[in-house]
Amino acid sequence: MTSTALLTDRYELTMVDAALLAGTHDTPCVFELFARRLPNGRRYGVVAGTGRLLDAIAGFRFGPAELAALKRDEVVSTDALDWLESYRFTGDIRGYREGELYFPGSPLLVVEAGFAEGVILETLALSTLNYDSAVASAAARMVSAASGRPLAEMGSRRTGERSAVAAARAAYIAGFGATSNLEAGRTWRVPTMGTAAHAFTLLFPDEEQAFRAQVASMGVGTTLLVDTYDIRAGVENAVRAAGTELGAVRIDSGDLGVVVAEVREQLDALGATDTRITVTNDLDEYAIAALASAPVDSYGVGTALVTGSGAPAAGMVYKLVARRDAEGTWIGVGKSSEGKATIGGRKQPVRALRDGVAVSEDIHVDDPPVEALDAGVGRLLHTTLMTHGEAASEALGPDGVERARAHHAAAIAELPADALRLSRGEPAIPTRYL
Amino acid sequence: MTSTALLTDRYELTMVDAALLAGTHDTPCVFELFARRLPNGRRYGVVAGTGRLLDAIAGFRFGPAELAALKRDEVVSTDALDWLESYRFTGDIRGYREGELYFPGSPLLVVEAGFAEGVILETLALSTLNYDSAVASAAARMVSAASGRPLAEMGSRRTGERSAVAAARAAYIAGFGATSNLEAGRTWRVPTMGTAAHAFTLLFPDEEQAFRAQVASMGVGTTLLVDTYDIRAGVENAVRAAGTELGAVRIDSGDLGVVVAEVREQLDALGATDTRITVTNDLDEYAIAALASAPVDSYGVGTALVTGSGAPAAGMVYKLVARRDAEGTWIGVGKSSEGKATIGGRKQPVRALRDGVAVSEDIHVDDPPVEALDAGVGRLLHTTLMTHGEAASEALGPDGVERARAHHAAAIAELPADALRLSRGEPAIPTRYL
Repeated sequence: MTSTALLTDRYELTMVDAALLAGTHDTPCVFELFARRLPNGRRYGVVAGTGRLLDAIAGFRFGPAELAALKRDEVVSTDALDWLESYRFTGDIRGYREGELYFPGSPLLVVEAGFAEGVILETLALSTLNYDSAVASAAARMVSAASGRPLAEMGSRRTGERSAVAAARAAYIAGFGATSNLEAGRTWRVPTMGTAAHAFTLLFPDEEQAFRAQVASMGVGTTLLVDTYDIRAGVENAVRAAGTELGAVRIDSGDLGVVVAEVREQLDALGATDTRITVTNDLDEYAIAALASAPVDSYGVGTALVTGSGAPAAGMVYKLVARRDAEGTWIGVGKSSEGKATIGGRKQPVRALRDGVAVSEDIHVDDPPVEALDAGVGRLLHTTLMTHGEAASEALGPDGVERARAHHAAAIAELPADALRLSRGEPAIPTRYL
Repeated sequence: MTSTALLTDRYELTMVDAALLAGTHDTPCVFELFARRLPNGRRYGVVAGTGRLLDAIAGFRFGPAELAALKRDEVVSTDALDWLESYRFTGDIRGYREGELYFPGSPLLVVEAGFAEGVILETLALSTLNYDSAVASAAARMVSAASGRPLAEMGSRRTGERSAVAAARAAYIAGFGATSNLEAGRTWRVPTMGTAAHAFTLLFPDEEQAFRAQVASMGVGTTLLVDTYDIRAGVENAVRAAGTELGAVRIDSGDLGVVVAEVREQLDALGATDTRITVTNDLDEYAIAALASAPVDSYGVGTALVTGSGAPAAGMVYKLVARRDAEGTWIGVGKSSEGKATIGGRKQPVRALRDGVAVSEDIHVDDPPVEALDAGVGRLLHTTLMTHGEAASEALGPDGVERARAHHAAAIAELPADALRLSRGEPAIPTRYL
């Protein structure tokens, strides 16, 4: 496994160094990962990246190459290098299931470990969850807007090449049906799909020859891109090349509401009544919603999805919330910085439900016994993600992704009906500290 | 080297498959990577990611694991698998130097290769350049806004964990002085820096003890974070712990314009007249500009930088612009899709200069001889990036990054003065097709 140990901020390691010298590195601590607010008037957020993070923590080991780089740049002392050399995370992590919804203050991860062991994971945990959750949160809104029509993620070209894989995974968890990204297919078993680019059409002397070549290779069930030249002529060429059994046509330009209706009429007139129409032109949740009454069969979404549709980072933070003092007593701690104050103490979150509908995010502070919470009024939101540094296997790999997708669908179904509207508003349910 | 071959869209491979069957896969082609427009009323863009892309192309090889994955999911035919197995890019690429400025239509890369060889790089090239250029373009505006004060990139936690490394690299090319990201330090030799998090202060019984521990480990030249509790008391504690030789204090909250002035006054009164002030609270280019008259010594920038400050993807596309027909004649090709028409033909771009100041982006179409262009009226913008699949060594590695940084500074210096204003506007120079 490639080491992830340098995918972090320099200050994580220098804090470890200073804590080692002060003898405070092993102080038992509780760190919490949460978002202070939802971005852009969103009504809920979607947690994603958890399974990837557990993998990344397993790979967070300082091998000879990493240690040599730190030594070359004199990042930390020799003592700290020794400590890093033997580092592996041995603490406990509990948190929200991947795919779960979240609200302001939801304690998404609670990391219990010695100070140095836990603080060092801050940057990696935030990178992973902030990006993946930004994509999943945007994806969930698009899925709502599509009202049951299938969506495919096609945004690999609009985000960093490795983030593209994470984005495909996050979108699938939030209800997209497929991705164009082949690495997401290999690593996470997200179903992959594809059509063709304009370049393929332009390679041939004319459009019909291009379509015939594509059908010869991929069968009549393929999707033909009909807007390279003139859409009306393109649809004619498509049906001429593939026959009325043609799987689908794709439209990637123009005023989609108008064009789609015309293409549907034209396809039907040509006898291609089962040929589907997929659209892909810079869609976001609002454009998808605006096409609700158009005869669109599926959507392909790129830029807006992989950039979080206006909220490209989820804004999560990772804070020390409790430490054990010299007498062995747990002390809740929090900063009081203007506008950024944190609430100390270990948290147990419960989604309070009434008749199966979510009514509030109840965050019990100072770690009350779980039995006191499970009184049938809600759903305990924390699950065990890591025990003594060992990841919970059900959160990992393609199976973890499928579980997250199923969990997400169930969590969305609990929301009050108006939580799914696209307009700006307050969080769908209030956060209460108890 | 890890294979990058599956960091691509499925349709790239199915187009290869269809072209193989049609016998058109080896058709000599020219692909062009460009941006139709600049985002958000920006006045220029900055090319970044080129050196990373050349590495990624070298790693774009289908090994046994990649072929097995494609076979399992029945992505392409057996013939195509055979072709992919022996794939390596053997074409030529010329393009803008990394760090160069660009404008609408600037032909940033011109890829000459057989159709299949060239089309297959589309997604990878766009992922790399779209993200890195989005960050570099935002970074350049922040550098302008900072008017010579140093900037550090601290956004790793707000973007995917691998994109974070690319972002640090791109920001450095555009003039940032350092990054918090250790992997960027290792791989690209970007100078790394760091302060401390609030968690470190909260680990200790009181702030002064935390500061003393940090100073003991890192020396009095360190930067102390003074806003965990009360900034005024924090500054007092900082000077008490480190003395008047304290390197810097960091402020991460509050109304920075007001707070910074107060802290400067307090530090001076305490005799810490050489102690610098660095600020970090969700800055973007506008917030930086607003602090121009405040006694800030340096800026740390995170979220806005790594998410492109409102333009998280540069919007570049990769299009077939010419192919050789059966008679051996080059034919310029382009789609005519509504709002997305492309201009066919091979391009040679020149930055026209008058008295050393850029006046237009002149794009000569249909590949005129270079001699005709180099008449002293401008600067030829294309350089050789890859010859027969071999990367130009000067674009690679940490040295390539330093060259890009120097080239960027020189290119920015050519812009007319009003090009650097932050308000929305037209591109700083017009694009002309000649």
